[in-house]
Amino acid sequence: MKTHTDVTLFRRCAAEGVGSAFLLAGVVGSGIMADRLSGGNAAIALLANTLATGGVLLCLIAALGPISGAHFNPAVSLADALGGGLRPKELLGYASSQLTGALAGVATANAMFGLPLLSIAHRHRSGAGLWLGEFVATFGLLLVIWGCVRFRSTLVAPAVAAYIVAAYWFTSSTSFANPAVTIARSFSDTFTGIRPADVAPFIAAQLAGAVAATYLFLWLVPVSQRQAKALLLPHEEGTDAA
Amino acid sequence: MKTHTDVTLFRRCAAEGVGSAFLLAGVVGSGIMADRLSGGNAAIALLANTLATGGVLLCLIAALGPISGAHFNPAVSLADALGGGLRPKELLGYASSQLTGALAGVATANAMFGLPLLSIAHRHRSGAGLWLGEFVATFGLLLVIWGCVRFRSTLVAPAVAAYIVAAYWFTSSTSFANPAVTIARSFSDTFTGIRPADVAPFIAAQLAGAVAATYLFLWLVPVSQRQAKALLLPHEEGTDAA
Amino acid sequence: MKTHTDVTLFRRCAAEGVGSAFLLAGVVGSGIMADRLSGGNAAIALLANTLATGGVLLCLIAALGPISGAHFNPAVSLADALGGGLRPKELLGYASSQLTGALAGVATANAMFGLPLLSIAHRHRSGAGLWLGEFVATFGLLLVIWGCVRFRSTLVAPAVAAYIVAAYWFTSSTSFANPAVTIARSFSDTFTGIRPADVAPFIAAQLAGAVAATYLFLWLVPVSQRQAKALLLPHEEGTDAA
Amino acid sequence: MKTHTDVTLFRRCAAEGVGSAFLLAGVVGSGIMADRLSGGNAAIALLANTLATGGVLLCLIAALGPISGAHFNPAVSLADALGGGLRPKELLGYASSQLTGALAGVATANAMFGLPLLSIAHRHRSGAGLWLGEFVATFGLLLVIWGCVRFRSTLVAPAVAAYIVAAYWFTSSTSFANPAVTIARSFSDTFTGIRPADVAPFIAAQLAGAVAATYLFLWLVPVSQRQAKALLLPHEEGTDAA
Repeated sequence: MKTHTDVTLFRRCAAEGVGSAFLLAGVVGSGIMADRLSGGNAAIALLANTLATGGVLLCLIAALGPISGAHFNPAVSLADALGGGLRPKELLGYASSQLTGALAGVATANAMFGLPLLSIAHRHRSGAGLWLGEFVATFGLLLVIWGCVRFRSTLVAPAVAAYIVAAYWFTSSTSFANPAVTIARSFSDTFTGIRPADVAPFIAAQLAGAVAATYLFLWLVPVSQRQAKALLLPHEEGTDAA
Repeated sequence: MKTHTDVTLFRRCAAEGVGSAFLLAGVVGSGIMADRLSGGNAAIALLANTLATGGVLLCLIAALGPISGAHFNPAVSLADALGGGLRPKELLGYASSQLTGALAGVATANAMFGLPLLSIAHRHRSGAGLWLGEFVATFGLLLVIWGCVRFRSTLVAPAVAAYIVAAYWFTSSTSFANPAVTIARSFSDTFTGIRPADVAPFIAAQLAGAVAATYLFLWLVPVSQRQAKALLLPHEEGTDAA
Repeated sequence: MKTHTDVTLFRRCAAEGVGSAFLLAGVVGSGIMADRLSGGNAAIALLANTLATGGVLLCLIAALGPISGAHFNPAVSLADALGGGLRPKELLGYASSQLTGALAGVATANAMFGLPLLSIAHRHRSGAGLWLGEFVATFGLLLVIWGCVRFRSTLVAPAVAAYIVAAYWFTSSTSFANPAVTIARSFSDTFTGIRPADVAPFIAAQLAGAVAATYLFLWLVPVSQRQAKALLLPHEEGTDAA
Repeated sequence: MKTHTDVTLFRRCAAEGVGSAFLLAGVVGSGIMADRLSGGNAAIALLANTLATGGVLLCLIAALGPISGAHFNPAVSLADALGGGLRPKELLGYASSQLTGALAGVATANAMFGLPLLSIAHRHRSGAGLWLGEFVATFGLLLVIWGCVRFRSTLVAPAVAAYIVAAYWFTSSTSFANPAVTIARSFSDTFTGIRPADVAPFIAAQLAGAVAATYLFLWLVPVSQRQAKALLLPHEEGTDAA
């Protein structure tokens, strides 16, 4: 049976793009809806935003994981490349598809709710506490991914969804944990937006968290040369799907 | 062991009808209950409606999937027919059972809450944003179904439930994504109702989304002749269940 | 490996009793907590009550299913007996353990919250709409159980939990769907209570729903003599667990 | 393939520490966020706190279970030792790592939200009802763990998460059910804090509940000498992961 490793890079990038588009449509769209309906109670709005994000992550990882690995996240693709899973050319293709898809997703969300396709967000998200939040959020995300991919690949979809549901609430930054998501959310001046000036430190913290978790995990579960292949994100996924 | 392909078409249509009835009873009934209890906070009402819809989808797909494929949705049956899974005669049987069941479910919900069995809804649901919402909602639904059915059929039930939970919030139309559901909901003048005049464009957008996602997926994961059988919705389901 | 069929009836009844106690402690206790914290918003209280009930069902069925079948419900045990799974003596043992456990669970919940161990509920729950609700609720519960047990026994726990989460909202009676639960809830004068005078018609509707769903399913998926064993609730569960 | 039994004790303790840190960051951080956003409605705050705790438990058990068994809880490690799974030296290492990690997690949560790293909680949590609550909460937790580990180890992560989601609501004490969590939560003067003076009786009730459930389960499902190995928590986990 064909696994995603047989799928051409172009198709895998298409899957990353479509998935990232739905992820962002999910995050931004549900933020708009929740904000409109919640009557000013931010906790209720965030609960709805959380459920929608968890739901969309679970189904997208389940559906597209066997095709592209379902990263939808340049930080995850970078960690995968560090672990030997993606070659530099693939990493470039993945990251650019994720960003393009994410922007398309934001535009779709805005259009569905009758807003301009893209608008510049004005929501402040800055400060040491929030940057620590993004470091912690992405550190935890990669820890969960590496742990599940290594031993229990069928649990990746529910575990990542459950993690993000939790991290929306336990990190002070509401867990962007994804550079493509962060950039794209600066183009929607709504509940889930982020001021462009606040994007760069978020991304720096995310990449630092992803790299730190990757090296921690490699120390926690040392892998022999023979086992190395099984550690790669998309390969393990593909094996599971086959 | 018997799979649903051995089950006579009549029994499979009965399963589609019973399942569609419970789906609509779930959607409409929980809408009435949520509306009554939520004290006017639409976000809380939609949260409850969302949970109930996700729950009823998960258990119905798990329980009836092995019998009929658990479509409960003419757009899904049409996509399945496009992919070669259902013959025209079966498609007709499925769609009419889904519609009949859906109407029975609405009547049951109305009766449980002491309302007239059927009433004409007055809730406006119209406009380009909402039609785009229905296109996106059904496009995503089919993408999730094709992705999971193809590689991870045991995840179809949780993935579809998670998708609809999300789409209730991230689409401007609250994701009807189902022609039988759309028609049936025009017969309950309650929280989840839709004005009959608004039904047709919703259905057009849904069918367009379903067809587009089906062709995208066929391009994303080309299937050789030998593998074609495994792609059919109900067959794959049946294999899993056997 | 030992399956629950090797477990003596006494131990299986103990498992049914302990499970029923935790089920009722979960339902009644979370009702008290939700009622106290929700500031009068009944939808928020029912959301919390719903989540807690779904959670406790999922974990109890997962943990105790391999021992006793995890019925915790005389209507389920009766349906199992109709299908040939439980002998009359076992049915009697199961039902009495379920009722005893349920009462102990209510007393535990009341005690945890500083209330008298048992008190007579005064909450009215009566009328044709609610009785239809109980019929529908128990009909659906058995449909889900038979469907999952027959083809996908690993999904019984999440599917039953998801069903009850939904049915709390889509049935007008908030889905008691369980004679032991109904009787026990008449002994807590709190959010989830039911007036003793309203118990009998609820139970009648529940039993009718359970029997109707059982016969529908037997028609929907006819079973040959050779396959009959696999249809029995606890046996199938035991096979899965072994 | 390597299982966690091959992992050195030091690495297993590191996994327990990291996991306990994320568990506490999840519990305490989401409590702070929920309290800030909920506008004074304690039920909405607890709903958010519940979802976050369930999410973080599910993903941590899935990701780290294969490495250390994912106890994150001295009461669970003690029960495992009683069952023959952990030797005294390992129990000591596990418990001290759990406590250290838990304190680090609380400090991280406080830092993310701009609070002093550690502060003494002032929230009263005392009385017979609450102590009974902790006994019931930990009793149920161990019952769920033993039941799932014994027969269905892949369900441990969702079942434990679902149990704690429920127990937050159905126990009067909101289910600490974990001595390391209890001590650590006394160092955050926020929504989830507990006054230091109230810690000792909580821990006593927790240990009593864990021991009682362990002996009940050993009676419920007697294990022959040959099967004994499969009963040990981390071994069973390891087998599942391999």
